[in-house]
Amino acid sequence: MTSIVRSEQALYQTLFALAQHYPIAYEWLKRLPDWLTAVKNKDRYAHAPFYQSVVDKLPPIAPTAVYLDEACVRAEVAFDDSEYRRSRALLANLMPWRKGGFIIGRDDRTIHIDTEWRSDLKWERVLPHISDLTGRRVLDVGGGSGYHGFRMVGAGASTVVVIDPSCLFYHQFMAIRHFLGELGNRFGQSPIHFIPVGLEELPQDTRQAGLFHTVFCMGVLYHRASPFECLAQLKAQLAHGGELVLETLVVAGDENTVLVPQDRYAMMNNVYFLPSVAALTVWLKKAGFVDIRCVDVNITTTDEQRATDWMTYHSLGDFLDSDDNSKTVEGYPRPMRAVMVCKRP
Amino acid sequence: MTSIVRSEQALYQTLFALAQHYPIAYEWLKRLPDWLTAVKNKDRYAHAPFYQSVVDKLPPIAPTAVYLDEACVRAEVAFDDSEYRRSRALLANLMPWRKGGFIIGRDDRTIHIDTEWRSDLKWERVLPHISDLTGRRVLDVGGGSGYHGFRMVGAGASTVVVIDPSCLFYHQFMAIRHFLGELGNRFGQSPIHFIPVGLEELPQDTRQAGLFHTVFCMGVLYHRASPFECLAQLKAQLAHGGELVLETLVVAGDENTVLVPQDRYAMMNNVYFLPSVAALTVWLKKAGFVDIRCVDVNITTTDEQRATDWMTYHSLGDFLDSDDNSKTVEGYPRPMRAVMVCKRP
Amino acid sequence: MTSIVRSEQALYQTLFALAQHYPIAYEWLKRLPDWLTAVKNKDRYAHAPFYQSVVDKLPPIAPTAVYLDEACVRAEVAFDDSEYRRSRALLANLMPWRKGGFIIGRDDRTIHIDTEWRSDLKWERVLPHISDLTGRRVLDVGGGSGYHGFRMVGAGASTVVVIDPSCLFYHQFMAIRHFLGELGNRFGQSPIHFIPVGLEELPQDTRQAGLFHTVFCMGVLYHRASPFECLAQLKAQLAHGGELVLETLVVAGDENTVLVPQDRYAMMNNVYFLPSVAALTVWLKKAGFVDIRCVDVNITTTDEQRATDWMTYHSLGDFLDSDDNSKTVEGYPRPMRAVMVCKRP
Amino acid sequence: MTSIVRSEQALYQTLFALAQHYPIAYEWLKRLPDWLTAVKNKDRYAHAPFYQSVVDKLPPIAPTAVYLDEACVRAEVAFDDSEYRRSRALLANLMPWRKGGFIIGRDDRTIHIDTEWRSDLKWERVLPHISDLTGRRVLDVGGGSGYHGFRMVGAGASTVVVIDPSCLFYHQFMAIRHFLGELGNRFGQSPIHFIPVGLEELPQDTRQAGLFHTVFCMGVLYHRASPFECLAQLKAQLAHGGELVLETLVVAGDENTVLVPQDRYAMMNNVYFLPSVAALTVWLKKAGFVDIRCVDVNITTTDEQRATDWMTYHSLGDFLDSDDNSKTVEGYPRPMRAVMVCKRP
Repeated sequence: MTSIVRSEQALYQTLFALAQHYPIAYEWLKRLPDWLTAVKNKDRYAHAPFYQSVVDKLPPIAPTAVYLDEACVRAEVAFDDSEYRRSRALLANLMPWRKGGFIIGRDDRTIHIDTEWRSDLKWERVLPHISDLTGRRVLDVGGGSGYHGFRMVGAGASTVVVIDPSCLFYHQFMAIRHFLGELGNRFGQSPIHFIPVGLEELPQDTRQAGLFHTVFCMGVLYHRASPFECLAQLKAQLAHGGELVLETLVVAGDENTVLVPQDRYAMMNNVYFLPSVAALTVWLKKAGFVDIRCVDVNITTTDEQRATDWMTYHSLGDFLDSDDNSKTVEGYPRPMRAVMVCKRP
Repeated sequence: MTSIVRSEQALYQTLFALAQHYPIAYEWLKRLPDWLTAVKNKDRYAHAPFYQSVVDKLPPIAPTAVYLDEACVRAEVAFDDSEYRRSRALLANLMPWRKGGFIIGRDDRTIHIDTEWRSDLKWERVLPHISDLTGRRVLDVGGGSGYHGFRMVGAGASTVVVIDPSCLFYHQFMAIRHFLGELGNRFGQSPIHFIPVGLEELPQDTRQAGLFHTVFCMGVLYHRASPFECLAQLKAQLAHGGELVLETLVVAGDENTVLVPQDRYAMMNNVYFLPSVAALTVWLKKAGFVDIRCVDVNITTTDEQRATDWMTYHSLGDFLDSDDNSKTVEGYPRPMRAVMVCKRP
Repeated sequence: MTSIVRSEQALYQTLFALAQHYPIAYEWLKRLPDWLTAVKNKDRYAHAPFYQSVVDKLPPIAPTAVYLDEACVRAEVAFDDSEYRRSRALLANLMPWRKGGFIIGRDDRTIHIDTEWRSDLKWERVLPHISDLTGRRVLDVGGGSGYHGFRMVGAGASTVVVIDPSCLFYHQFMAIRHFLGELGNRFGQSPIHFIPVGLEELPQDTRQAGLFHTVFCMGVLYHRASPFECLAQLKAQLAHGGELVLETLVVAGDENTVLVPQDRYAMMNNVYFLPSVAALTVWLKKAGFVDIRCVDVNITTTDEQRATDWMTYHSLGDFLDSDDNSKTVEGYPRPMRAVMVCKRP
Repeated sequence: MTSIVRSEQALYQTLFALAQHYPIAYEWLKRLPDWLTAVKNKDRYAHAPFYQSVVDKLPPIAPTAVYLDEACVRAEVAFDDSEYRRSRALLANLMPWRKGGFIIGRDDRTIHIDTEWRSDLKWERVLPHISDLTGRRVLDVGGGSGYHGFRMVGAGASTVVVIDPSCLFYHQFMAIRHFLGELGNRFGQSPIHFIPVGLEELPQDTRQAGLFHTVFCMGVLYHRASPFECLAQLKAQLAHGGELVLETLVVAGDENTVLVPQDRYAMMNNVYFLPSVAALTVWLKKAGFVDIRCVDVNITTTDEQRATDWMTYHSLGDFLDSDDNSKTVEGYPRPMRAVMVCKRP
């Protein structure tokens, strides 16, 4: 059984177990076959067979130790030289790597996947401000390669579901997952799963609460044409009393300040609403959240987001005005991100 | 055959004729039975049978003249005294009347439906700035009782389709339509139709242009949680080169000013985005419209919107702060409305 | 407006009028666009554009008289020589013609479409035994070119709907319909319509009675893999007390005699159940019909079914064993057809 | 985890494992939640909660031995007296028991569920004539309490799926399954599963072969209004070269003999086609099966089907004419059953 198949089987078991207590999980089970087959459909994702073959070729070695509470997610693996070289080359085939980093190996046979984002910096800013994750079921919306999801497990979450519609990120997750070995929680089940699907496709039932105690949504809201629909979807995934951790691009200003870039923003397409923290607070209230706090506002720097050997495209440095790096190339304020924490009543 | 049945039959004929040239009209035809039966469903609309009986009881008199280019839509009808009294009582059963006004009758047997809005004032502000409606197919989104739709016919439109999901407005339209008689256009078909449906339910096909040369959307956008979806839906209804006439609540401010009321605005529920004219202009560009002009900005006064004998509820005067009528009771800027005109390329 | 468009428009009007009293007709209206566009879809019917062009090119001449109560459906048309030649050639483009015959023209410019079947013989055998069609709504299932449908109008039916999924038969009907002119019934509407659809696709609602006073189903049942589903569908189309006229292939035998040809029967594919009259009577009872009568049993002869100039393929003569014409080429009993008449309670 | 939940989980694992090689199994996975929740829906099945509570209350004892190759499916269970009495009473709550028998217990604490049918007699008549079940995936359509399914496991099948839409039979299966313990096949998975669903709801894909090497369909065909649709559905479940074992009621006669009872047959409702063996052979050929053999014809006796303490309603003896037991009470030939074996090419 390949790593991917083992992961998918664990996902079935987890959802089936949830369905015994939360009928909404049956709705997840119904959709799961389509979600899992879509990401393997080469008509839809031309690179899917290649990515899958990359993961399947990774050497079948169990880690000697796993660390999910360090800056890099790390699997101590006793590679021989051939395995080391092969693994390194295979992982490079899954470039560009955006969220991380990851360390696989040991001693002088260590692969350090130095990702575009030093995602640990964001995690360090967020973690002190949120409810203790111990024993919680957590959803990470738009979770990329799963870096933050692994950190959530490291912080005690009993079950983490990472969703992201990207075929590449799905396979990056599966590659990292491959080297992390069993990871079993107290029920012997894998504590972390990746579903290649977007938030808007998840089951919602207004008559039932959601499955999760904590929902993370970082770097997603500004890509949504309808922020209120996005907030409603996030709320629907939360159990009553559950916590939303929302990170998005913001601008300076008062309750009535919202930037909508006419075209691109920092060279990104599909950027819609960039509210001020004050405006975002109003939106969260309007969407029905309570106990709303802004726990961090941070201007992204090139220490945190930059091109590396594992992500060689343009990165933040190229998105800023070369004459005035307080502005993007389009002349908008340079990226600033806020983290909001709030609860579903 | 009742007035309502005659209207519905005319709608079928119009859509069928359109379908010969524009296949998207077949999609309208498919949905039409559900649209027409929904508005008669008493489980959904408790008052539907009553409203329908009101329309059915109107005396079957043809008008001696019809005027669609005056401040009030007017049907000169030679009522006898009994017919006059009965018609007046029946029309009063369809209160509250919001958009108008309407004049039915003649001499001292004249019914003047003095509506909450003097909708002629808005029409006079808009008409000089838009493309000549002569011979155009026009859609009026959220058209209420159809007042503006009748004025569009008066301004030369060959076919006007008014849509509004309100069961009451549907029957108000049918009551007025009853007294207007044949109105046949050069093809002998009725030039005006009412479909009780919301914009979001209309057929859309990104591979086909829409059916309409001009689309009006007045007083709708601020009620939509997702303004960009609303703009995309409006665009989809337009033929290439067609014109959008968009009226919505705005606030003073620059490109980055958008008011989102946390709860109610001027005592209205479900109010979302109130942009500045500058911000709205950016949104229209982002949505793919061109030739964007703001042709009117107007602070609504109690001359234009007020309680009358035909709308006795609270009106604008009650929605403003009694100490400072530059503000709403919630403390927001008092209602200001802009009219934007732009084109689908 | 072409003949086909005019026919379709008349169909919309008829169904819309029915829907005022019988809500099930709204279900027909919803499906009508798909039915009408399917038959024009050249991906589905390669010949559809050609057939349509044939009908569209027929000369626009009104008949001087129309006869629907003679052996041939006849339109007296005063062709000039060019029109006569052109019409004849165009109609020949719609070969093979199976059900008829038809006579179009006058004097020495008369086109006699001598069809494979002399369908008048069957009609003469059936008509004396069924309820008077005067003023009835009638459905003809599998009605081919519409010959019997025209005869039903001739026998007084107020509305006839012919259904048949064949694209060719649809256009044959439209070609004949073209020459028959107005035909208006007392409501000024066309009394006959063709819908290119199979019985199994018609709307059914077990909570509502069907639309028709008489349903004809001739030459269809033996092609159905599930005769009981077919009988249930026919029943669903009937009003309470309505009459079914069912003609199908039968064999000699008792209540327990049913022939199921292993492969082909008389060179036809897709032949399933050929019961005896006694067995068929049991089936009709089981299906819930009452007042069941067998009104005709007839061994098809080469007088009634034969190759002609308008149907040059193999016909009955070729389907029989050349040494023993009491048998088909496959060795089964030669075709024998029974007509059953019964009622929905 | 209850027995039922454990069974359902095993079913998920089996289907998931199949899906890795046979994509059609994903279609089963998609429908599985609806199938499993339907049978627990008390609006649909008033007794479902009661039946489920019966199964849940069975004492949690592992068997000391299990025998699936004897006349009765037998679990040797070391009951204490209280467990014995309780189990006996609970199992009696799931009456009437039709297919069996079953023996649960040991020595003088043995429960013998003496079912209406001595299903072992049929099994003995069938088994010698079919392909060796060793290592095969088997579907049992209309499998009742699962008796034959357990015997299939006893005969070596690697995976057996029993389907039957009956809520009672589902819970009878679960009760028996409860006492049979692990039963793990070489993959450690349960070799037998019950899905509460009818044949017609199973996924079919004409582009893919079915999942099963052998399909049993015993006592179902005569209840189907459309035997050819039933045969097509059975064929669709078979892999190429797979074997169908079909048992149904037959009558004496030649290729053209088919009895269709007008109303009831042996006091059963919903009985449609009873062909002769010769006619049934033609049907199987027509449906595309090959290597068709009739391996058994048997007149059901009161030794095989009779009322017992576990099925106290009327049974065969009551369904026959008391004066002439060669006939049913309705006067038809008394029940005779044939077993046909054939292959999908």
